Amino acid sequence: MDNTLTVTPKTRVKRAPKRAVYERDALYAIFDAAIVAHVGFQIEGQPFVIPTLCWRAGNSLYIHGAGSSRMLKHLDSGAPVCVTATHLDGLILAKSAFHHSANYRSACVFGAFTRVIDELEWIESFRIFTEQIAPGRWDHIRPPSAKETKATHVYKLSLDEASVKVRTGPPNDDPEDQARPVWSGEIPVRQVFGPMQPDQYAEGIAEPDYSEAYGRRWIAPASNERTTE
Amino acid sequence: MDNTLTVTPKTRVKRAPKRAVYERDALYAIFDAAIVAHVGFQIEGQPFVIPTLCWRAGNSLYIHGAGSSRMLKHLDSGAPVCVTATHLDGLILAKSAFHHSANYRSACVFGAFTRVIDELEWIESFRIFTEQIAPGRWDHIRPPSAKETKATHVYKLSLDEASVKVRTGPPNDDPEDQARPVWSGEIPVRQVFGPMQPDQYAEGIAEPDYSEAYGRRWIAPASNERTTE
Repeated sequence: MDNTLTVTPKTRVKRAPKRAVYERDALYAIFDAAIVAHVGFQIEGQPFVIPTLCWRAGNSLYIHGAGSSRMLKHLDSGAPVCVTATHLDGLILAKSAFHHSANYRSACVFGAFTRVIDELEWIESFRIFTEQIAPGRWDHIRPPSAKETKATHVYKLSLDEASVKVRTGPPNDDPEDQARPVWSGEIPVRQVFGPMQPDQYAEGIAEPDYSEAYGRRWIAPASNERTTE
Repeated sequence: MDNTLTVTPKTRVKRAPKRAVYERDALYAIFDAAIVAHVGFQIEGQPFVIPTLCWRAGNSLYIHGAGSSRMLKHLDSGAPVCVTATHLDGLILAKSAFHHSANYRSACVFGAFTRVIDELEWIESFRIFTEQIAPGRWDHIRPPSAKETKATHVYKLSLDEASVKVRTGPPNDDPEDQARPVWSGEIPVRQVFGPMQPDQYAEGIAEPDYSEAYGRRWIAPASNERTTE
């Protein structure tokens, strides 16, 4: 598949076009790092923005929920959506109020969800989701029962029409402000995971190593020798 | 002001009503902890969900941007919006695939933005925003010039019609799954800040202490004695 995203009237970045990234790799990376996406839809002119867990497999973005969900029922109609994932990476502190900013990665996808009906695709999508969150876990948990499978709906959205915006780097102060004696730079912002908190039914069960899924953003227990960030 | 949020057809939580919180304090706390919110609007039936920096003052949520922004121009028309802030607090790993979940706090506000035209309110809103991000900073940075003030538009949204959903606690496994020998519990998720990265114009300037704004989620430099999380 071509790595260049097709630009459409909806996906062309008009403000700060230098921050636009029209690459499929960048789009995938943003959704792969996202656990939550914000789904936008409208009913009779009123917009709704609902946070939901998301995962990517191939060129599709997946979400799931109870079949009784108001949002999912609405998506069943093929309603147009915009789904956005955002990572705040840093606060940019400039010498002037005006040039304060943020470093971030964000992606907006446009399209319409379709429900995953095929049983094999349904179960495989959950296996992928689980393995992304907790590698190796799928083979140990109880698989969905017939009743649970029926109650849980999965929807997918093609990642074909999307826009990506990214800001990196230090402040962009005006030259005449650069000598001003106020601290300038970036406060990095990171999402970190752990240490794991067992529930009462985990007693005596070895703690699995899911750090692979989170790379350097994993905070291990104090007794563990993994490096903390 | 009454701490109980008025329930409307838009804000009544239908799915998992036990996770609904109809308290103004909880709504404010979610936006106070949020740096980015997702603004949803629709143009000719197509939804858009745009991430943007946000801050709260009193009973209003504020956003800002270039006056030339497509989104802000659209908001000028008094278009209905939904603005959502979400904090992912933990991944919930249950014994069954079905009961996997997430801990989170999210708030959706409905209404219409109005532009802040009054000059005193405009500058005061930026002072509040800056001081929330970096306490004490406003008095040291260069204030906005007349040109910058004209180019930067501020919008506010009343926090009157809003819904809040929160999940906390361990997995809710079915009794017949509790003895299953697979680890169960929570992987906490946190947003952390720092250590600060000076730019080239910060040389020789003392690093300010902004940790107050971020509480325990501040990661100090290794040479510093503050506790890291």
